[in-house]
Amino acid sequence: MRQPRVEIEYCTQCRWLLRAAWTAQELLTTFSDELGEVALVPGTGAVFNVRLDEEMLWSRQEQGAHPDLADLKRLVRDRIAPGRSLGHTDRRSPPPPPADHEH
Amino acid sequence: MRQPRVEIEYCTQCRWLLRAAWTAQELLTTFSDELGEVALVPGTGAVFNVRLDEEMLWSRQEQGAHPDLADLKRLVRDRIAPGRSLGHTDRRSPPPPPADHEH
Repeated sequence: MRQPRVEIEYCTQCRWLLRAAWTAQELLTTFSDELGEVALVPGTGAVFNVRLDEEMLWSRQEQGAHPDLADLKRLVRDRIAPGRSLGHTDRRSPPPPPADHEH
Repeated sequence: MRQPRVEIEYCTQCRWLLRAAWTAQELLTTFSDELGEVALVPGTGAVFNVRLDEEMLWSRQEQGAHPDLADLKRLVRDRIAPGRSLGHTDRRSPPPPPADHEH
């Protein structure tokens, strides 16, 4: 069975190669048995897109920010290794509830 | 016209992800306009292969060593940007001639 491919398209003008390569190494370290490859794709125009096979997992233009690594790992895990624990990445406590305004 | 793809297959058991990612970043920095993508492909069994589209540019098993980066850049340049200078990479002096054995 062909293993999934991740594609990280990054903007060369914005010098995002280092961020893209760091993200690739993190995904390949966490999912070394599950991923077939991670491809780094040079682009322009402030692009930073992460695709899993044909699905767009994260688009900086749409989401308005770079992906948080733990969120990105959960997005990948939910598709290629559902149920698998990501250790501390999963235990990261959700953001605190909004402060109580009574006092 | 589709741009060329480089594939770096590396051994996860030998922990060669860092070397593979470093090589990918160097190639993407030097050939950011000419390459369509560089893919990192996890493998096993002491593999470290660099392919350009379908051609095997370097195989650690065949060549018996990891590729020297300057040599690898010249191999890629000769195929995707023939004639283009690689600056200091090209000016690296060739190895000295064997010592004269008469004296």
